[in-house]
Amino acid sequence: MSDDPPFSHVDEHGRASMVNVLAKPATYRLARASCAVATSPDGRRLLQNPVAGAEVISAARTAAVAGAKRTARLIPLCHPIRIDAVRVDVTVTRTGARIAATAESVERTGVEMEALTACACAALTIVRAVLPVDPGVRVDDLVLEHKSGGRSGTWNR
Amino acid sequence: MSDDPPFSHVDEHGRASMVNVLAKPATYRLARASCAVATSPDGRRLLQNPVAGAEVISAARTAAVAGAKRTARLIPLCHPIRIDAVRVDVTVTRTGARIAATAESVERTGVEMEALTACACAALTIVRAVLPVDPGVRVDDLVLEHKSGGRSGTWNR
Amino acid sequence: MSDDPPFSHVDEHGRASMVNVLAKPATYRLARASCAVATSPDGRRLLQNPVAGAEVISAARTAAVAGAKRTARLIPLCHPIRIDAVRVDVTVTRTGARIAATAESVERTGVEMEALTACACAALTIVRAVLPVDPGVRVDDLVLEHKSGGRSGTWNR
Amino acid sequence: MSDDPPFSHVDEHGRASMVNVLAKPATYRLARASCAVATSPDGRRLLQNPVAGAEVISAARTAAVAGAKRTARLIPLCHPIRIDAVRVDVTVTRTGARIAATAESVERTGVEMEALTACACAALTIVRAVLPVDPGVRVDDLVLEHKSGGRSGTWNR
Amino acid sequence: MSDDPPFSHVDEHGRASMVNVLAKPATYRLARASCAVATSPDGRRLLQNPVAGAEVISAARTAAVAGAKRTARLIPLCHPIRIDAVRVDVTVTRTGARIAATAESVERTGVEMEALTACACAALTIVRAVLPVDPGVRVDDLVLEHKSGGRSGTWNR
Amino acid sequence: MSDDPPFSHVDEHGRASMVNVLAKPATYRLARASCAVATSPDGRRLLQNPVAGAEVISAARTAAVAGAKRTARLIPLCHPIRIDAVRVDVTVTRTGARIAATAESVERTGVEMEALTACACAALTIVRAVLPVDPGVRVDDLVLEHKSGGRSGTWNR
Repeated sequence: MSDDPPFSHVDEHGRASMVNVLAKPATYRLARASCAVATSPDGRRLLQNPVAGAEVISAARTAAVAGAKRTARLIPLCHPIRIDAVRVDVTVTRTGARIAATAESVERTGVEMEALTACACAALTIVRAVLPVDPGVRVDDLVLEHKSGGRSGTWNR
Repeated sequence: MSDDPPFSHVDEHGRASMVNVLAKPATYRLARASCAVATSPDGRRLLQNPVAGAEVISAARTAAVAGAKRTARLIPLCHPIRIDAVRVDVTVTRTGARIAATAESVERTGVEMEALTACACAALTIVRAVLPVDPGVRVDDLVLEHKSGGRSGTWNR
Repeated sequence: MSDDPPFSHVDEHGRASMVNVLAKPATYRLARASCAVATSPDGRRLLQNPVAGAEVISAARTAAVAGAKRTARLIPLCHPIRIDAVRVDVTVTRTGARIAATAESVERTGVEMEALTACACAALTIVRAVLPVDPGVRVDDLVLEHKSGGRSGTWNR
Repeated sequence: MSDDPPFSHVDEHGRASMVNVLAKPATYRLARASCAVATSPDGRRLLQNPVAGAEVISAARTAAVAGAKRTARLIPLCHPIRIDAVRVDVTVTRTGARIAATAESVERTGVEMEALTACACAALTIVRAVLPVDPGVRVDDLVLEHKSGGRSGTWNR
Repeated sequence: MSDDPPFSHVDEHGRASMVNVLAKPATYRLARASCAVATSPDGRRLLQNPVAGAEVISAARTAAVAGAKRTARLIPLCHPIRIDAVRVDVTVTRTGARIAATAESVERTGVEMEALTACACAALTIVRAVLPVDPGVRVDDLVLEHKSGGRSGTWNR
Repeated sequence: MSDDPPFSHVDEHGRASMVNVLAKPATYRLARASCAVATSPDGRRLLQNPVAGAEVISAARTAAVAGAKRTARLIPLCHPIRIDAVRVDVTVTRTGARIAATAESVERTGVEMEALTACACAALTIVRAVLPVDPGVRVDDLVLEHKSGGRSGTWNR
């Protein structure tokens, strides 16, 4: 993805299209993304609860893996690709939760969007759990941390 | 949603479940959420391009409406509900883009998650478009702005 | 749907949106659509085969019902609605096949798109079956035949 | 697809099945399909509107790309494949709109159904937009224009 | 569902259809289903592991809730309905695991299929987890336990 | 799948993840699964009806193929894979119906779950059809019959 040429998602007439990636070789790709959920003391108490919090975090991880697999359906111009691995970490922090997701594939396009979508789905699952006690819950800093593979090579934040 | 009792998404044994909302009346609900996409000058140039940028923003709005309809599939414990209206605004700003989404329904649960999911999907569509020119693109401040209807009444950020 | 005001799918700023239907009462709606598949003698022989043809037609009917349920996901700005009945007829004709689908609901929007989508999915299933023997197979005359219910009342082709 | 043997979608007992394509090599495949939407002067005025019409056509292109990716879910017996490119053109004509879609892949089966499904989804999106002003809107001539690749080689309408 | 007339899923010409439920009132419906997973000592050791087993069971519950929401897409002739509650219990037993699911709704059709589909999805998630250590794992006794509401009233196994 | 190491679906910290299969070669995989539906004389009469029963069995086969393609969405930790063939047999028996499904692929993971999910979806479709006349209908013996390919080689029940 990040090795597409600039403006690659629109063709010479400005029309959105799913760009042709056939000229690219299928190579090993890895991308890591992350984000943060900031919540109130009540929200954090829920996430830290050994039973209820563990269940929420487990559901967030499951939602993240499912979300990574759904990326091409959610983001109109992403290619449907075969994802070979998704790993999701959810850590309860002093301000809420920190989410990191890694996606791996051997494909013609990168897996950056898959890692980012996984993070977003985990974050929304946590938001849904704390919303009743903290409607002010916030998701921040949804970013790509690292990518490797593909024509444009390795990139680190 | 935000009028669920605290910890409502886990039952008395700490098990995640889709909470029973039958005791709640079906009433008019509205929720508004927003987020921001921060990108580099190259990314902003793309979004400001009258042809390519307009196409991206249109795809982001379409993805947001589709995402709102998909909320119950993305977030494990959300109820499948009938959404009666979704409105999405994407504004190109000095730092990137600002997204706002409003969801409305007459249901037994709120539409907060639908508005938040719409924003996340629009943001990820924009991220996908600018990632080739700015892998450092960032989504911030995904929050609920306002909700009304339901047992817990009106809430404003 | 057909009782929306003109241009109802775009708001006052030309932005696509899922229009607010809350002001409309939920009333009984019915829509009937149809289309035709024209194929070669080889394609017709397949459709008339008592075993293989019956299987194709049964798969086409199943695809039509499934397609009607998927309308809101396929057509960006359609509302997700509860469909209360879908009936699909596939008739083998002298030139190929004729498809008719009826959708019924008690909702705030019409079911015209559901009937049309059902027809399109049945037609594509038949096309898929005859394509190996007739790549020139053609779908024509996908139209609404009749609608009733809603503010705009009854309409017949 | 069109290089399957005749009746390939049903086995020796007349049962529908997803045919085994493992004996076929994964080769480059391209398919182009098209269709036409015929609408009234009111419908054409909407499509020609520089703001509302542009938004509809953009939504139609997005729906077409999404539809191509969904082909295996819509058409029961299609194989789930990786699509490497989809390009969609929507042209406003004197009678309505003309849609053309090209799908490309390196797979064991053709992408004819993906190109046809893309056209159908774009057409239905346009139909949905003009239906309130023209319930008589019609989709015609949904056909394969060209295919290349696979055992059966190149075919042109 | 179980208050449909016999053969209700096929019409007078033997064609599958999504039966018209509009004549039925929308009333409160509840259905409970269950099934059993039988596995080897190695499989049971995995399910009893306080960390890995808990994670599997949590994923099974999430899959069950998601599966209940997907029933109308999985089972061709089921109506898409709004489910108001799903509760899933997974108990590790001496022979493997026991799954029970309850679905509730206020609709025109029953929620029996939703409860059964939830059980099947939870069972398949557990099967997927133990399959590497026990390819002989087995799902048995997938049955409806109880239903209430609707024209046909209460039924108990 | 069954050639994953034990506990492969949870990582060293007990977290569910979609395991990395990149170290495995893409090889030919085949899996066959089966299950049984037991129903009352009334239910069997329906399945044996030459018109209504044939339609149900055809819908069950279609649901099975569609279910196999949906496996990765239904079972949280399954990899999305390309399935190259699915074959489904439904036989009416003295006690109800017997279902067998075979899935084939050239992939890095097995297709056991695809074959099992196909059987479950066919069984639930039959259950849905007979439920109005036999709410006691039961699915039993959902098992893997055979697998070949992959590191762990051939396995037979």
